Amino acid sequence: MICNRMDIQQYMSDLGARARAASRHMARADSGAKNRALAAIAAALRSHRSAVLDANRQDMELATKNGLDSALLDRLELTPARFDGMVEGLEQVIALPDPIGAITDMSYRPSGIQVGKMRVPLGVIGIIYESRPNVTIDAASLCLKSGNAAILRGGSEAINSNQAIAECLRVGLREAGLPEDAVQVIETTDRAAVGELITHPEYVDVIVPRGGKGLIERISNEARVPVIKHLDGNCHVFIDVDADHEKAIAIAINAKTHRYGTCNTMETLLVHEGVAAQLLPTLADQYRSAGVELRGCEKSRALVADMTPASEDDWRDEYLAPILAIKVVTDVDEAMDHISQYSSGHTESIVTENWTRARRFLAEVDSSSVIVNASTRFADGFEYGLGAEIGISTDRIHARGPVGLEGLTSQKWIVFGDGHVRS
Amino acid sequence: MICNRMDIQQYMSDLGARARAASRHMARADSGAKNRALAAIAAALRSHRSAVLDANRQDMELATKNGLDSALLDRLELTPARFDGMVEGLEQVIALPDPIGAITDMSYRPSGIQVGKMRVPLGVIGIIYESRPNVTIDAASLCLKSGNAAILRGGSEAINSNQAIAECLRVGLREAGLPEDAVQVIETTDRAAVGELITHPEYVDVIVPRGGKGLIERISNEARVPVIKHLDGNCHVFIDVDADHEKAIAIAINAKTHRYGTCNTMETLLVHEGVAAQLLPTLADQYRSAGVELRGCEKSRALVADMTPASEDDWRDEYLAPILAIKVVTDVDEAMDHISQYSSGHTESIVTENWTRARRFLAEVDSSSVIVNASTRFADGFEYGLGAEIGISTDRIHARGPVGLEGLTSQKWIVFGDGHVRS
Repeated sequence: MICNRMDIQQYMSDLGARARAASRHMARADSGAKNRALAAIAAALRSHRSAVLDANRQDMELATKNGLDSALLDRLELTPARFDGMVEGLEQVIALPDPIGAITDMSYRPSGIQVGKMRVPLGVIGIIYESRPNVTIDAASLCLKSGNAAILRGGSEAINSNQAIAECLRVGLREAGLPEDAVQVIETTDRAAVGELITHPEYVDVIVPRGGKGLIERISNEARVPVIKHLDGNCHVFIDVDADHEKAIAIAINAKTHRYGTCNTMETLLVHEGVAAQLLPTLADQYRSAGVELRGCEKSRALVADMTPASEDDWRDEYLAPILAIKVVTDVDEAMDHISQYSSGHTESIVTENWTRARRFLAEVDSSSVIVNASTRFADGFEYGLGAEIGISTDRIHARGPVGLEGLTSQKWIVFGDGHVRS
Repeated sequence: MICNRMDIQQYMSDLGARARAASRHMARADSGAKNRALAAIAAALRSHRSAVLDANRQDMELATKNGLDSALLDRLELTPARFDGMVEGLEQVIALPDPIGAITDMSYRPSGIQVGKMRVPLGVIGIIYESRPNVTIDAASLCLKSGNAAILRGGSEAINSNQAIAECLRVGLREAGLPEDAVQVIETTDRAAVGELITHPEYVDVIVPRGGKGLIERISNEARVPVIKHLDGNCHVFIDVDADHEKAIAIAINAKTHRYGTCNTMETLLVHEGVAAQLLPTLADQYRSAGVELRGCEKSRALVADMTPASEDDWRDEYLAPILAIKVVTDVDEAMDHISQYSSGHTESIVTENWTRARRFLAEVDSSSVIVNASTRFADGFEYGLGAEIGISTDRIHARGPVGLEGLTSQKWIVFGDGHVRS
């Protein structure tokens, strides 16, 4: 039992040193060994199925007693179907190509040396997340496949589930002859452990926080280790004057109503004034029958009855709810200016048949995903073919948008010579 | 004249907001416009040549009066030859391919959407550097070519030189029709300006500090903005038992004696015990006639007379001086263990004709450059074909090793559809 600050520091530095040692071993592990470990973890999960589900039931009971809200309870629950999905996810990661060791761009230089790049793991990845215990396996499998060691810190409400899953991770790693310390799940729910995790670059190379904005801002502010993070998803669809009307309606409806709580859901719809009168009434009917509350600018309110006026906050807010802000704009420039001012840089889509405006939108909109004639809901690691994602980055350096295996790697330079010296 | 903390905050936030606005313009500038601006800056430098050299003389006089040491005075001096080199550097950057807008990896997904990546600028780059005024032009030209805006903060000792160069930057940008604010050189020498520069992610996307380790550690600790940094260059050469002796001697001598003060200079030589008796006496003679002081492990001291014993510190130190630590090791594993324990992760080289050990060294050594049969001195942006470098990164994320134009960019995702929605 860890009971004071000194103990936490000692516990975390032991854990960090073991992760660092394991990361060296993992960096050398070949694809076969890594895939065998993932398969052994899947097998261990299957054979420990009832223990894991029992542990999750304990967490659910405690959480219910502690009055956790229903959305969080839903995320915490490991239903049999979710459990199976978690194991299938592992098998999908086995099927992904191993990025490590890939050598690219080898070319001869005038000096005679041959220079290129080799893809390498980042080292030790710290992942901080809330509620959903299946993230433990998602994160572990991506870190292992990309040759990294991982330190996972789940939410205190999921501690029993996560420890039961951690046991399966250890069994699988041991059976495959890889170090058990390659994935460690922090055993204490003390928040001081997070403080230690994010301030020791000697043990941890990058932190991936997943959770509410408050958690992520706190971690970014306190971290002394690089952070790959996702803040807001205030996404836009712009319907241009040259939009195909059928596509525009399909995309605008899908981007909002497919799911309300996801970060790639549209939160503001921008409509060119040349098509607003034709499209907005139809769109408003469809949104309202889906139960979406509409908040509009003055011009849009002139076209749709009973729409709440949109305030400045509505342009900024990520609703994560069945609410949509609507603004009528004069042209693609006003649309892009609005996006530049209010977007969180996550995902924006233009609906147009006009070649030049599509090209301008693609080039000039500065978001991690820029889409032409498709729903913002496609901005997702699975849809992009990454196989899985550790998260979606709204940062500008290292990785933007969905982060899969490649985002957990870097490239070192390699040089081949034949006794070459510099003159 | 900026005279208090409030003024500095106001000055820096104005400057930051202007940089942010200019970065939007720069991101859209095509290669032609960027190259015309670089050419116009080169022309402005040529026509303001005497003004810049006069300003540098002022800095030199003041620095001499202030008792700056000779190494710093040498770095501060803008000789006519250095001035010409600076202008030529600009022309080399014009000749580099423009990385921005490059679309790669477009592929169709099962949903029917087409997904790929487009290379984009990082946004606003803050660069903090000391002494050498030519860094002002190097950094500005790389930032401009890569579609970024830049805020440059040179050393207080170079303020007159840097302001004279800044005037040429403004003239060139104006003539090419690009915003003058695309490169701003901070006009105050107040250290509070650095504090502001590194703590406002709303204005600055990444900081590149160039200078002594103290400066870089301080900036990394205080920054609230991602930092691309270079710490130590404790580089190693390992001479394997199967090394070609002639190549081994050439590389080991070149890696140490070609230049002493550079970060890719070898600081510790590791020699396999099977060849130490044959090679070390010859090497020691050559080092000593070049004026290099040798500090060795016990085994190496048995082979070379009058060698100072190496302490633990010698394995860690980046001498940046004519001093070399030497250690005899039993095999490639001991060599790699030593590197893993003491290297700063900058550059390591193996000399061997053995295929398997060369492959192992390449795969297992975790440094930003790993070299087979060539001198560590090749770890350099120009030698690697980057054309120029903004610095060398010893970080693990985003960019490792020499950072050129590509390191000042990122990739966003782009999606092409034809009315696609997610089901």
